[in-house]
Amino acid sequence: MNVHGVPHRSLREAPDGGAILAVDQTRLPGEFLECRLGSIGDVADAITAMRVRGAPLIGIAAAYGLALALRDDPSDAGLDRATDLLGATRPTAVNLAWALDRVGEMVRPLPPPVRAEAAWRSAGAIAESEVAACLAIGRHGAELLRRLERPAGRALQILTHCNAGWLATVDWGTALAPIYRLHDAGVPVHVWVSETRPRNQGLLTAWELGAHGVPFTVIADNAAGHLLARRNVDAVLVGADRITRSGDVGNKIGTLLKALAAREFRVPFYVAAPLSTVDLSIRDGASIPIEERSPGEVVGTSTLPAINPGFDVTPASFVTAIITERGVAAATEAALAALRAGDSA
Amino acid sequence: MNVHGVPHRSLREAPDGGAILAVDQTRLPGEFLECRLGSIGDVADAITAMRVRGAPLIGIAAAYGLALALRDDPSDAGLDRATDLLGATRPTAVNLAWALDRVGEMVRPLPPPVRAEAAWRSAGAIAESEVAACLAIGRHGAELLRRLERPAGRALQILTHCNAGWLATVDWGTALAPIYRLHDAGVPVHVWVSETRPRNQGLLTAWELGAHGVPFTVIADNAAGHLLARRNVDAVLVGADRITRSGDVGNKIGTLLKALAAREFRVPFYVAAPLSTVDLSIRDGASIPIEERSPGEVVGTSTLPAINPGFDVTPASFVTAIITERGVAAATEAALAALRAGDSA
Repeated sequence: MNVHGVPHRSLREAPDGGAILAVDQTRLPGEFLECRLGSIGDVADAITAMRVRGAPLIGIAAAYGLALALRDDPSDAGLDRATDLLGATRPTAVNLAWALDRVGEMVRPLPPPVRAEAAWRSAGAIAESEVAACLAIGRHGAELLRRLERPAGRALQILTHCNAGWLATVDWGTALAPIYRLHDAGVPVHVWVSETRPRNQGLLTAWELGAHGVPFTVIADNAAGHLLARRNVDAVLVGADRITRSGDVGNKIGTLLKALAAREFRVPFYVAAPLSTVDLSIRDGASIPIEERSPGEVVGTSTLPAINPGFDVTPASFVTAIITERGVAAATEAALAALRAGDSA
Repeated sequence: MNVHGVPHRSLREAPDGGAILAVDQTRLPGEFLECRLGSIGDVADAITAMRVRGAPLIGIAAAYGLALALRDDPSDAGLDRATDLLGATRPTAVNLAWALDRVGEMVRPLPPPVRAEAAWRSAGAIAESEVAACLAIGRHGAELLRRLERPAGRALQILTHCNAGWLATVDWGTALAPIYRLHDAGVPVHVWVSETRPRNQGLLTAWELGAHGVPFTVIADNAAGHLLARRNVDAVLVGADRITRSGDVGNKIGTLLKALAAREFRVPFYVAAPLSTVDLSIRDGASIPIEERSPGEVVGTSTLPAINPGFDVTPASFVTAIITERGVAAATEAALAALRAGDSA
């Protein structure tokens, strides 16, 4: 999307082909600059330190990381080691394992000397396919949001959480893709941006929206219930790190509270995610691994005892619909399976 | 309560009688020190800047502020001006107007020369009566919490929000009073402390509990839903800034989200407050004035657009019970009226 009129992506191949260049998300919203990741170690560190973050983006970065590792050691053992190292960087988002699996399955049958180049191309293909998926999510989501009832003359009011924008997905975003699409089409839209403690990824969303020109207002996470109760929100729209096959949604900590409030106050709660986010291996949200992050993200350098779960699970029954690149589905096993069947057709 | 073994109160009369001494809550948890408030201007500034905060405490501080003003100008006009100035410092907590009304009604019939001294004594009486109310809330609340079912051998797990401890109430606290009482009686209790963005009053609660020796763990506000969903909480227990006569509860922003999650996951949601918190003049929570605070509390010195409502309203239907100094009542007009009838008996 645009940064003050100039199109950008959050991750791209370096022109010299020796690395990937990724927007350093720990420097935003203060500074907009790219970091050069030229080795598997660089990529793993960037994911762990959240310089590169967002479920789809860390999958793509990991795929490129695997390709970089294979340049040094294209053996089966090297492939296994690199896959294990990258797979262990973050536990909750399914996209990481999904992308590593795709690249691994593709290169393992190949002779070692051509594996690195094939992996690099495969990573690029995954990136392009994610961008295409986000574009399609934007199209389907915009259709859905456009039909929401709202008072005449008032902008469409969308509440989001965390950052599910182009920073998290190379381009367009998942939850933000329909918003960009509506805005670009001239539909008045305003976004309530939940700051998303403890890491404040809401400020990434604020930065993105501001740079592209979409009106927004930041709120403390605590204020979401009040806004929903006072009918200031037409829809809640978030991304996802992992969706079970029955439609339970693992996403940034705090998502569940917004879903509960949305249902109570009869506001639709939408999840936007590519079908690659659906983990067919698990049915129940209780099986989604929840990353326990550092207490220091909550209490700083103090020695106060703290815990810091990075994600929570919103039961499918609270999800009005899931917006995918294949269309909009109810959060049920049958509806998700039907979309996937379309996928394999 | 104790600070490392030494009993303290959050507000007291200066030994020379010329001022009140209040714990500066903006310096905690880093520094524990008192500020001297020797004029109505000092008191009003301290309330506005939240050096003195907490619904019961700002009522008491305002009562003393009125007394200090009457030392300079004990006329009817002086009394009116002082009441207006102090009453405008914070809008949501009903205790402020309640305490000013009580002192005003008491001193207005008196000849001006004796008004200041009478107001000073009246403020002191209000403070002592609030401490007694908190002690009784602790007794009733401890009885209630002690009966909660929990796994054998596990400490009682209480989730709280904001600070409703002795810092906010001279001594004991409202929500924290039952916890101190259980802890002092040897009942194992552990408190989940919600940090309470944007002002982080949860860190005041953490400091209080730590200084008194009660085990606790700080969480981001966003994590409350996850903890409740995972059955790590036996009860949610919060204070209140204003309760309508039908039992709707105005309290720190974010309280509503915890109430919604508590009900969804079948965890009791208790509100602890003296009966002076009940505003008989309003029935519906929508009539509780919600303070709009500075956007800078959310987004710092940045120029990002933000809004910052300081409070939200939890409908009575989400409140399992209200713990008062007169006993425990359902959050209904009839039950609250019955408690008040006991009050006038």
